[in-house]
Amino acid sequence: MTHALLPEGLRDRLPPEAEAAAAILRAALDAVAGHGYERVAPPLAEFEESLVGRLKSASARDLLRVVDPVSQRTLALRPDITTQVGRIATTRMAHRARPLRLSYGGPVMKLRATQLRPEREMTQLGAELIGRDSAAAAAEIAVVAIEALAAAGAPRITIDLTLPDLVDVLAAGPLPLAPVDIARVRCLLDAKDAGGLVAAGAHAYLPLIEAAGPFAEAVTRLRAIDADGALATRLAALEQIAARIGDAAQITLDPTERHGFEYQSWLGFSLFVDGLAGEIGRGGTYTILSDTGCEEPAVGFSIYPDPLIERVARTAADHRLFLPLGHDQAAAEAMRAQGWSTVAALDARCDARALGCSHVLDGAAAVPLG
Amino acid sequence: MTHALLPEGLRDRLPPEAEAAAAILRAALDAVAGHGYERVAPPLAEFEESLVGRLKSASARDLLRVVDPVSQRTLALRPDITTQVGRIATTRMAHRARPLRLSYGGPVMKLRATQLRPEREMTQLGAELIGRDSAAAAAEIAVVAIEALAAAGAPRITIDLTLPDLVDVLAAGPLPLAPVDIARVRCLLDAKDAGGLVAAGAHAYLPLIEAAGPFAEAVTRLRAIDADGALATRLAALEQIAARIGDAAQITLDPTERHGFEYQSWLGFSLFVDGLAGEIGRGGTYTILSDTGCEEPAVGFSIYPDPLIERVARTAADHRLFLPLGHDQAAAEAMRAQGWSTVAALDARCDARALGCSHVLDGAAAVPLG
Repeated sequence: MTHALLPEGLRDRLPPEAEAAAAILRAALDAVAGHGYERVAPPLAEFEESLVGRLKSASARDLLRVVDPVSQRTLALRPDITTQVGRIATTRMAHRARPLRLSYGGPVMKLRATQLRPEREMTQLGAELIGRDSAAAAAEIAVVAIEALAAAGAPRITIDLTLPDLVDVLAAGPLPLAPVDIARVRCLLDAKDAGGLVAAGAHAYLPLIEAAGPFAEAVTRLRAIDADGALATRLAALEQIAARIGDAAQITLDPTERHGFEYQSWLGFSLFVDGLAGEIGRGGTYTILSDTGCEEPAVGFSIYPDPLIERVARTAADHRLFLPLGHDQAAAEAMRAQGWSTVAALDARCDARALGCSHVLDGAAAVPLG
Repeated sequence: MTHALLPEGLRDRLPPEAEAAAAILRAALDAVAGHGYERVAPPLAEFEESLVGRLKSASARDLLRVVDPVSQRTLALRPDITTQVGRIATTRMAHRARPLRLSYGGPVMKLRATQLRPEREMTQLGAELIGRDSAAAAAEIAVVAIEALAAAGAPRITIDLTLPDLVDVLAAGPLPLAPVDIARVRCLLDAKDAGGLVAAGAHAYLPLIEAAGPFAEAVTRLRAIDADGALATRLAALEQIAARIGDAAQITLDPTERHGFEYQSWLGFSLFVDGLAGEIGRGGTYTILSDTGCEEPAVGFSIYPDPLIERVARTAADHRLFLPLGHDQAAAEAMRAQGWSTVAALDARCDARALGCSHVLDGAAAVPLG
């Protein structure tokens, strides 16, 4: 049985999970396509240095490398598709009108698994809106992300909004901080360390700790500390996004949350699904740097939908129709056209129940197996 | 622009090809699922020695290898999914009733491209029927393969049947050959070298060269050389398969074709699509050897559908509906539910034509862009 062992973090998906995984990807990307996002499909591997140049440093350390005797160069398996979409948008699709709406979905592979995600191969899907990072653009991306999750079978969805550069904006305006203190205050806010903020002489930032939670209350608290209106644009944008989402998801605000949003510009968000540990996706605004040195604003999201598989996997026996020896082939074809899966007897040894069938074809009718 | 260069044989699929590739896989596997085949999804990479042990020797030389610091072992990217499905069938699904019907679809990666197929990453889809290799089983697999191709958008399909062990059967029966001559006669038949057969004293095998072509004529010629009925079972099986296929495909017979069928037992077939060079898929009967030494008969097919992409790719602008600023969001949602892709204006700079839209939403109606 040693041949059957798979490397750590890699696995076989069996029925019905494999079908559920495909159905989830399909449903989510269909929802995204409905909003005008066009599919792109970059390759599973690229030249290592090409991927590394575009990845966050943490991801670059996390590459599975491929020996390529053909090119005599090292390839790397993609740990993320977003960066490949950015490459496509700024090269082969550089001439296309903006905003450019692209979607993607497929496997990614990482060197290391994490405790929360023991898989090293996982599905990533998402959408990127390139050429805009306005509130309207961000609102669209948030809505599309939520619709994609809902189409994928996610129950109650929560979106947690954050303002990654909030401390910079406040420090440059109403709540002045010396540049040397900005990083320290950020860390104290990350830790929600009220005592530390007071000890650091940054008590002006204390209200930010309170300004986290359900959206309406949190944004009211945030507005209260924005006496001179330095945040007015940001607050209006958050309100616009929340209004556009409506009741499609629960909305929370954690204005100083930065973890994982180091590459986001003014907005970041995390997506959660009731009953699943950890976030299932994230997104936000960012800047794409092209190879020719041009910068473009963008906003996008990524979802890692595999944790939904168990919820979506149906019992395979639901609509499985046994076709006895000598059955009417036209009747069988008509049943398949109606959505049945048919299982034909090949010989007298084939048993309907053993083969997981729920019904048997009798003439042109599906009769439940008693 | 050097960052945009991809390794030889790897490529980005752009709109509308990427969407077409996904639609082809979806349609083909839906057709396969209709016949009771359950989806499995093995990982993109396995331990090298585990893959090598199950691959044909030619494929084993063709592996892209992955450095895995976690397992401290060499992994290989799968060049073929069939072997992984065999592993699953004989291990984790060994307890499931036979015949076991499994399907799969996803990317495979090869070290080297071929002239016919310049891609090193390509889509493979297929189905395996495990536990039977009877004529009924082979007929089902041939029909499912043809339906999958048709669902994927293939125009006129041809299936070319072959009997990989035909020379062995004849040599052991009506047309005796010394074991040492069997390989030579096979090669001469491969080359359709009539003069060589005569020179080798194997003129009894000359009629096999003629017994290739459209099914009805070819099988008649083959029957004519089977005076003592050594081939009776095979001929009856071919007739049964051809009858089951009916007019779903053109059927040809090339009884001595062996190229690429070295691992098939009594039946092999190639699939062709009008207008495409080379075969698009193949299949046949074979034997699975489990890790515990048990043998199981099986029959299956694989299709590499990427050449169909250009035929299927639709013009993306067909049903692309521009949503002007201030549009009715409920009307937009209703249009998406009807199958439209909507493209929302985010600001006054967004232009319907530049964004590839065919229609614009006016109230609740889609008005063609003049």
